[in-house]
Amino acid sequence: MNLEFAIRSTDGAARAGVASVRGKRFATPAFMPVGTYGTVKALTPRQLGEVGAEVLVANTFHLMQRPSAETVCELGGLHDFMQFDGAILTDSGGFQVWSLGELRKVSEDGVKFRAPVDGSRVHLTPESAESVQENLASDIHMVLDECTEYPAERERARESLELTSRWAMRAKAAHEGSEAAQFAIVQGGMYEDLRLASLASLLDIGFDGYAVGGLSVGEPKADMWRVVSGLAPHMPIDRIRYLMGVGTPDDILQGIALGIDLFDCVLPTRNARNGYLFTHSGVVKMGNAAHRRSSEFLDANCDCYTCQHFSRGYLHHLYACNEILASVLGTLHNVAYYQALVKDARAAIAEARFQAFARERRAAWSAA
Amino acid sequence: MNLEFAIRSTDGAARAGVASVRGKRFATPAFMPVGTYGTVKALTPRQLGEVGAEVLVANTFHLMQRPSAETVCELGGLHDFMQFDGAILTDSGGFQVWSLGELRKVSEDGVKFRAPVDGSRVHLTPESAESVQENLASDIHMVLDECTEYPAERERARESLELTSRWAMRAKAAHEGSEAAQFAIVQGGMYEDLRLASLASLLDIGFDGYAVGGLSVGEPKADMWRVVSGLAPHMPIDRIRYLMGVGTPDDILQGIALGIDLFDCVLPTRNARNGYLFTHSGVVKMGNAAHRRSSEFLDANCDCYTCQHFSRGYLHHLYACNEILASVLGTLHNVAYYQALVKDARAAIAEARFQAFARERRAAWSAA
Repeated sequence: MNLEFAIRSTDGAARAGVASVRGKRFATPAFMPVGTYGTVKALTPRQLGEVGAEVLVANTFHLMQRPSAETVCELGGLHDFMQFDGAILTDSGGFQVWSLGELRKVSEDGVKFRAPVDGSRVHLTPESAESVQENLASDIHMVLDECTEYPAERERARESLELTSRWAMRAKAAHEGSEAAQFAIVQGGMYEDLRLASLASLLDIGFDGYAVGGLSVGEPKADMWRVVSGLAPHMPIDRIRYLMGVGTPDDILQGIALGIDLFDCVLPTRNARNGYLFTHSGVVKMGNAAHRRSSEFLDANCDCYTCQHFSRGYLHHLYACNEILASVLGTLHNVAYYQALVKDARAAIAEARFQAFARERRAAWSAA
Repeated sequence: MNLEFAIRSTDGAARAGVASVRGKRFATPAFMPVGTYGTVKALTPRQLGEVGAEVLVANTFHLMQRPSAETVCELGGLHDFMQFDGAILTDSGGFQVWSLGELRKVSEDGVKFRAPVDGSRVHLTPESAESVQENLASDIHMVLDECTEYPAERERARESLELTSRWAMRAKAAHEGSEAAQFAIVQGGMYEDLRLASLASLLDIGFDGYAVGGLSVGEPKADMWRVVSGLAPHMPIDRIRYLMGVGTPDDILQGIALGIDLFDCVLPTRNARNGYLFTHSGVVKMGNAAHRRSSEFLDANCDCYTCQHFSRGYLHHLYACNEILASVLGTLHNVAYYQALVKDARAAIAEARFQAFARERRAAWSAA
């Protein structure tokens, strides 16, 4: 195994630990900001470090098109390229290929599609997805999976998870000799027994961590949590559990309560660019004219650069004028907010008061 | 006088000094980054401080529309509003009103126009331009002037400069009691004798500093330098000389050689957003595919954050993907470059080798 993972404390199903991979450490539960093209939009790596981001995710699908994995490799790999010295996880590209809809063609061998950027034909296989990530020199590789569409009939979901498992086996073989860790992805649609079957077949192969994929694809949130609740207790306790593409601050607390260790989502960064900011007293829509003359700080309980310096009135003004600094200061805060949330969650778990902590946070969010 | 200005060394006509206003100091020759709406586009005030910007300019015309001078005043004035603790100069709005062309109507009293942002009618007078700047709480106010169009007949240029002088007298009266400094603006078109007449009438009124306006308005560059060359030797040696809206790095050196102390221009910030970056070996067009796989730093002689960390290949990638971080890192460098240029110029003046310094810089720019 190329990733060390030690649980330091538990509180119910919730767990707090430390992961170590290729000399980079990160505390869990962890939230990964999304650095699609090798940049967490609007932030310098120095700002990322300041807000406590120890691990981020970058998108293979995007990077293989621009600037290409070979170029990133020539420029020293993702860490040198983007100058981030924390841990970097890369996805396999599977989810974005799935998002192309009819434009992709899946076969036993892999998936063919036309690259949206330049229209060129791409053939992504479990082996090529692995070698692309090796070129990117990320610390954690994801296996290529087929993201099962929603809704999917039971038989379709079964076929899909079985394909994902066969691909996982090929990806593991292709990963041989790599210094990076490798995570597999549990599929199975909304069927709890199929999810367990998927997990079992991946456990047979053996990975550094296990992700829950195929969620946040349009299903009701209750279905998503039903699947995670059914699956998480069966996931190995000594491996990282990664809930892909999730979610809101409330989702993060819910996932942690179920024993999830790792999250990623574009929400804090994308919403920041749209003036939708997360605070201890709930969401603040910065474009709202009510903030125009407000001398209040954005979030009195946040110690980020934005909240230590700028009034809501100034932030409102920046958004109203569509200034780049609005995206910078908003993103800085939202990412800091998410990092503080998981940091506080880790502390609460260590003090065996996670449920009370989650209750207090939710009460404060809805009080405003 | 509300601004102290001490010349520390001279070298030919070039001078290096220190200005002090309302407790803020800045060394001259100084270049002011442009913070139109109360933000130097893409930079945090912390980054501005790090690259050595001690003084910046903000635009009255823009701020009076968004968020309004009253709102900035309520939020503590520009320094609190944008959290910049260096000196801030505000223009009078005159130049932007002039840019509106036919949409403005000039009378003895002032100038009427429709605000581009919301179509409301605005009447800007020497007195209201002063009170708006007092509300903005900047450190240096500019008098309202009429920017003489180019080309302008001699008689038209004379009428225009005389109106500007009458407005200057009213602006001075309106400034009575302010703690801010106040600069007047020399007009007179491309007529050297009219420029001297304009300067003489403004000297009779008496200001903390004198700006050269009505340049960079479409005239050949040779005409601009002819006007500045004719005017500068007659400007008082103990007052700041401000060449408005200028210019390229080469222009800055040329202006300093003629005894100019203060400059401002959107060039470093606007060009940065377009991938046009200034370096010791000339302009680098970051969008150029030649940089795609370059592991070189942008400027080996620059100590800014961008040049200390990122390869040209990464910067090229950010521009190719239209990432916000491209604007951030590019602007950070370009502003740092301009600040280093005037800092090095000050050192060269102190060592009485300014002409050699300027010659060396120009040779390096054109060598690449």
